[in-house]
Order: sequence, then C-alpha cells, then structure tokens
Amino acid sequence: MAHEAPFQLLHSELIHYICKTADGADSENGRSVTKLENMGFRVGQGLIERLTKDTARFKDELDVMKFICKDFWTCVFKKQIDNLRTNHQGIYVLQDNKFLLLCHMSAGKQYLEHAPKYLAFTCGLVRGALSNMGVKSIVTAEVSVMPACGDLAALIQ
Amino acid sequence: MAHEAPFQLLHSELIHYICKTADGADSENGRSVTKLENMGFRVGQGLIERLTKDTARFKDELDVMKFICKDFWTCVFKKQIDNLRTNHQGIYVLQDNKFLLLCHMSAGKQYLEHAPKYLAFTCGLVRGALSNMGVKSIVTAEVSVMPACGDLAALIQ
Repeated sequence: MAHEAPFQLLHSELIHYICKTADGADSENGRSVTKLENMGFRVGQGLIERLTKDTARFKDELDVMKFICKDFWTCVFKKQIDNLRTNHQGIYVLQDNKFLLLCHMSAGKQYLEHAPKYLAFTCGLVRGALSNMGVKSIVTAEVSVMPACGDLAALIQ
Repeated sequence: MAHEAPFQLLHSELIHYICKTADGADSENGRSVTKLENMGFRVGQGLIERLTKDTARFKDELDVMKFICKDFWTCVFKKQIDNLRTNHQGIYVLQDNKFLLLCHMSAGKQYLEHAPKYLAFTCGLVRGALSNMGVKSIVTAEVSVMPACGDLAALIQ
C-alpha cells in the first residue's frame, strides 16, 4: 500500500496550482515559493501540536532536533532523517537520502531549477514545528544529488 | 502517532488558500469548489494507478466500488467506508461515519454551509479513481450529521 501517496500527490497539485496562478515573472516565482513556505509553516505548527501532546518536556535544542528528525519526519514522510549534523552553535543539517517529495523526479540536472518549489513547503514545515516548540529558526534547503537527496539546514536564532 | 494529520492539515490549508484568493462572490465560491474538485480528480487518478498496480482485473462495477470503499479509502483516510448501498442500477451511496476531513469541525449546524468546500476534493478524488478504472461517473456528497457523517453518492454513467 502506498501510504505516503495521498500526501505526495496533494503536495504536487498544490505546487502546480500555486505556480500556475503566478504570472511567470521572476518575482512571482519567488512569491510562489514564499506562499508554499507559509503554508508549510502553518501545517508544521498544527502537526507538532498533535505529535507533542503526550511527550515529556524537551531538555535542549538538540533534543528538539532529534524529535524533528525522528517522530516528526516519520509522521510526514514515512521515514526518519538519515543523518543529522550540527556545529553545536545553532546550525543543524538534516539529510534525507530518499526524500519523498523529490524522489518521483527524474535523475540528472534537468529539473534542478524546479527543486526550490518542491522544498519550500518542507522548509516551512520544519520552521513551523520548531516555532511552536519555542525555537526560532531560519530553515533553508538544497538538493545535492537529484532526484532524492536533500539537505535541510536549520539555523537556530 | 497522527498518521493522517499531514494530509488533513495540508487539505485544510489548500481550501483556505483557494477560497482566500477567490473574491468572495457567489460565483467565485462555486469556482473554488470546482477547482478543488479538479485537484481531487487528478490526485485520485494518480493514486488509483499506484494502488491497482498489482491487483487482479475487476469483475464488475460493484467489484470496483468495493475496492474504492476498502483499499482506496483506507489509503487516503486510514479507515474503510462504513456502509455501501446500491440500487443495482448505477447508483452507489458510500457512507463514512467518521469522515477525516470533516471530523475536526465542531458539531451543530453552524458550519454546515462550509461543508461543500470540504467535500469537493473528495468527490473529485473518487471520480478520478473511477475514471482511471474505466468507470465514468458523477460524484456528489452531502453531510447528514455534523461534524463527521458524510454520504457520497456515485452515479455511474
């Protein structure tokens, strides 16, 4: 059974719809990405509320990030983050080697320019979740290897 | 774990976004519902392709509808349809007593007028799925008891 498919397909439709209604100019493209990021933010907020309902209080930032990598990521993307790195000064890099929202894209650099649209929602998702746990952050993403390997960097402020 | 939450929250955001960009007139409201229905249609098409990849050929219409009520519904809404009725002449009524996309609404008739927005995507979803299985249909929905009891009627053409 394809349990993750409804979310993935709905996400694709959303991107399609938002980018279709934009008029194609560069500034509009940026605005679409912002819209997607904002939607992710609100979904992240709602989601973390449900997920942390019965968890114990978190010790520190690292503890919060581990929860994001494990429970939160599994809930949305049906797998854990593969690798979490940190400089212990507020920068966390989350690596997913088979990222659900990109893994249907074809390999190669052909569609690399479209990647930001497919990552914006997820950046917002993590920022929203962190925000509701009292951690203010800037979250950015980049794709190293298409189709599916994504790095998400969270800078805690 | 709230497995169905990401889909549900994303669906709410989508409705919010589409209805916000509409200008509030009645015709615009109808157009929003149509947009949601169309998005559901495409998601339903994609979903049924993945779900039926390894299934045997369906005997007849009733067999198709049973698949929708069981496998398809479970994949999207994490539960089966509670009741399937038919007049054996092309009308099928699917009843869900705890419909995921409505069950977060408060009880009573206060929000009944908003129900169509929350049902449009699902109507499209079923229509898209049926369409890709070679069954042309008209799918409508109504809410009998808020918050969560929804009837979906599929008229096979």
